[in-house]
Amino acid sequence: MDNENIQEFSVEELLAKMDESDFDDIFEELFEKITILLEGKKYKQIREIMLHMNAADIAELMEEVIDELDMEKAILIFRMLPKDVSVDVFAYMPIDDQVGIISEISQMEVNYIMDELAFDDMIDVLEELPANLVDKILEKTPKNERKLINTFLNYPDYCAGTLMTPDYISLRKEMTVREALDYIKKEGMDSETIYTCYVKEMGRKLIGIVSLRTLVISDDNLQISDIMEEDFVSVNVYDDQEEVSDAFKKYNFLAIPVVDKEDRLVGIITVDDIIDVIEDENTEDFERMAGIMDSSDTEYLDMGVLNHAKNRLPWLVFLTVMGWGTSIILAHFEDMLSAAIMLVSYLPLLMGTGGNTGSQAATLIIRGMAVGDMEPSDAFKVIWKELRIAVCVGAILSLLNFLRIVYLDGETMVVGLTFAVSMLMVVVFAKIIGAVLPMAAKKVGLDPALMAAPMISSLTDMVSATTYCLLASLILGL
Amino acid sequence: MDNENIQEFSVEELLAKMDESDFDDIFEELFEKITILLEGKKYKQIREIMLHMNAADIAELMEEVIDELDMEKAILIFRMLPKDVSVDVFAYMPIDDQVGIISEISQMEVNYIMDELAFDDMIDVLEELPANLVDKILEKTPKNERKLINTFLNYPDYCAGTLMTPDYISLRKEMTVREALDYIKKEGMDSETIYTCYVKEMGRKLIGIVSLRTLVISDDNLQISDIMEEDFVSVNVYDDQEEVSDAFKKYNFLAIPVVDKEDRLVGIITVDDIIDVIEDENTEDFERMAGIMDSSDTEYLDMGVLNHAKNRLPWLVFLTVMGWGTSIILAHFEDMLSAAIMLVSYLPLLMGTGGNTGSQAATLIIRGMAVGDMEPSDAFKVIWKELRIAVCVGAILSLLNFLRIVYLDGETMVVGLTFAVSMLMVVVFAKIIGAVLPMAAKKVGLDPALMAAPMISSLTDMVSATTYCLLASLILGL
Repeated sequence: MDNENIQEFSVEELLAKMDESDFDDIFEELFEKITILLEGKKYKQIREIMLHMNAADIAELMEEVIDELDMEKAILIFRMLPKDVSVDVFAYMPIDDQVGIISEISQMEVNYIMDELAFDDMIDVLEELPANLVDKILEKTPKNERKLINTFLNYPDYCAGTLMTPDYISLRKEMTVREALDYIKKEGMDSETIYTCYVKEMGRKLIGIVSLRTLVISDDNLQISDIMEEDFVSVNVYDDQEEVSDAFKKYNFLAIPVVDKEDRLVGIITVDDIIDVIEDENTEDFERMAGIMDSSDTEYLDMGVLNHAKNRLPWLVFLTVMGWGTSIILAHFEDMLSAAIMLVSYLPLLMGTGGNTGSQAATLIIRGMAVGDMEPSDAFKVIWKELRIAVCVGAILSLLNFLRIVYLDGETMVVGLTFAVSMLMVVVFAKIIGAVLPMAAKKVGLDPALMAAPMISSLTDMVSATTYCLLASLILGL
Repeated sequence: MDNENIQEFSVEELLAKMDESDFDDIFEELFEKITILLEGKKYKQIREIMLHMNAADIAELMEEVIDELDMEKAILIFRMLPKDVSVDVFAYMPIDDQVGIISEISQMEVNYIMDELAFDDMIDVLEELPANLVDKILEKTPKNERKLINTFLNYPDYCAGTLMTPDYISLRKEMTVREALDYIKKEGMDSETIYTCYVKEMGRKLIGIVSLRTLVISDDNLQISDIMEEDFVSVNVYDDQEEVSDAFKKYNFLAIPVVDKEDRLVGIITVDDIIDVIEDENTEDFERMAGIMDSSDTEYLDMGVLNHAKNRLPWLVFLTVMGWGTSIILAHFEDMLSAAIMLVSYLPLLMGTGGNTGSQAATLIIRGMAVGDMEPSDAFKVIWKELRIAVCVGAILSLLNFLRIVYLDGETMVVGLTFAVSMLMVVVFAKIIGAVLPMAAKKVGLDPALMAAPMISSLTDMVSATTYCLLASLILGL
């Protein structure tokens, strides 16, 4: 049967198709054909196809092989790749799969990969490997590099130190442009980037930066000290990764220097790593705003059911306990509610609208602070704006519901009015609390993203219950 | 009084402080002192301070001047800047403020800025200017550039064409490395980037790319055709900006070539513009997930109350109408509810928990699809996982509430059981619907972010009401 399947397509046709199409468009077909070739043990053809792809695409295909087939087959493919390509492919894979591969291949292969990997990528892998594997790898490393690796491994999570690489071009200020370019020609191969070069004086203190662009367009005989930028922005090795990504967003850098507290250059961070940080920080915000704890680096499908449950339960339990508050309030008004039971059927709408309007405000404020459009110091402007928006939005929703209660449901004007006034009050409360809580959280150093939909909804539930029941008692005289 | 205030600080001290501190840390102090200097008309000192700052920081300060003082004062500062700096500062400002400045300065100043601005930045400004101002600017532009500008202005919003710039380095494949470097030295000044160069054949067809890194480390006498990368990734000029940013995320590019349907090179997109796109796409998702329409480029504080209301009302009205469904269900069970009124007090908790658990699932699935961790084709795996998570989470929440209802509230076991079983069923429903809806939306070409908390909550409200009331009727025999 395998042979039959293989007859159905020629590798040449597939290669021609790959040249013409976007990789994403033929991904499923490609994966299917690789599966057939794997089953038929047609390794030569697989290798031919792989040599036709770039490293990032091969990595994506291997991920799919690991997820849909098994690690063994992925390693089969991995070993078919030319050695230098295999390292590039490895660098593009997600950390879980990298660790999976490392655990399955020979020590010699591991050492080769670790040797060839960019320094910051190697540190990322080492951080996730079990201790015994790390020890084995470090055994083979020269002593001074081992020391450097250990320093990097010891930086706290999510700080600039964990993002940086020590492989940068460093120049001296006495060099001429020609000398600098010759030096880069010799050393540039192993650097993470050569597009920004760093000028250090004795004691490793960073005194200037110079871009390759400036070097290339400057006269050969100029000195580095004449063309270097002395007024540069740097980050501290212990700065949070969010501060680092903010600097990239603001200044449009390709790389940023990382210094210790004595202003000595210890590494650089490049923009490609920052794009990942930006997406991770956004993912963290999305998850926190939905009440999910402990945003982890593990992909959704790779995480176990119990871990998923563990990340979701704490907030759910907390919100349940808050929800009991609403129950107590409603229990207090039991007599009134049973005397006018039709009131009950409108209650969820009031609560739902409160939650929705409040979380609209909270989302805009949380996001606005995250991208730097506003600060807690803008609180009064924001509250004043939300108050007016709430009156607009609340008035329209109240009117809509009044008309429906009175004309569609045929309840009395007084019932309609009770609901409409409650709605307006709840919307105003929800919008204000949706603006205030995230700003207050930021002010006291908490993550504003915690004050999102779930929290706001719980609070507006209580306020809705209280407002509605009190107003009903008053207006309807119950 | 002004003079008194000015006596209180020396500009020298401020400059020294600026050298030592992070800009963010002294921002408020700096703004305060600039305000005092503006009041005292001490323009020489302001200029001195500005010359001590980089363009991105000056832009941030000018934004604050526009927001907190007025446009007139901002333009005063703007005119104090050396001409070349003023263009850089202008480029860093948000589009609203750019339009504000353009409308206030002289035609000559406008022409200077437009002339010096990077092409893609100029297009961004022209897109937002009123037509009569655009015409005035285009009048002064040479005919062939005017044609190019008009082509760029006509690309649809949010496509690759609106992000690209035509200012790139293009090489010929017969050039030697030395010739290429000499050419870059001559032409590099006006290019958006020189770090990736593009090799075109007759008819503008793109045949290869070569990085400046490769050029710098290659032998001077090699030909471009020997070292260029022929297997490169490009995007089409009409591709959506999200596809472009996905390519950057996957391949770690610094720039990507943009081609038309005949594979002719029409421009390039650089990574700094992509970081903005990534943040805009995330903002759009955050807003859609909170039920806010028509994500606009205007900052929160700059948008009027009525526009804010207009963006929030459509979903609120839609959700209100969905909420009426829940009312109808509850109205149907009025008799039963009034016979067992204590059931009512537990209802909001059931609905709230349904909404919260459902939107946890929806958020993870929406985000997972956005960052490429999963596809609609993974639906069965995801549903199976959510089902098991729902049973774990639901069981614990049900038990917790059962214990509370029976032991804290002193209700009967049967009431506790009714609630507990409803809770488990609602959680399972919510998690499944939270997983299915976003994937189904993507499958049919809708934005999955529309199927987030508000939508899920509305649906689970209806299911909660139905399940709870039906179970209560059955179990309690009401």
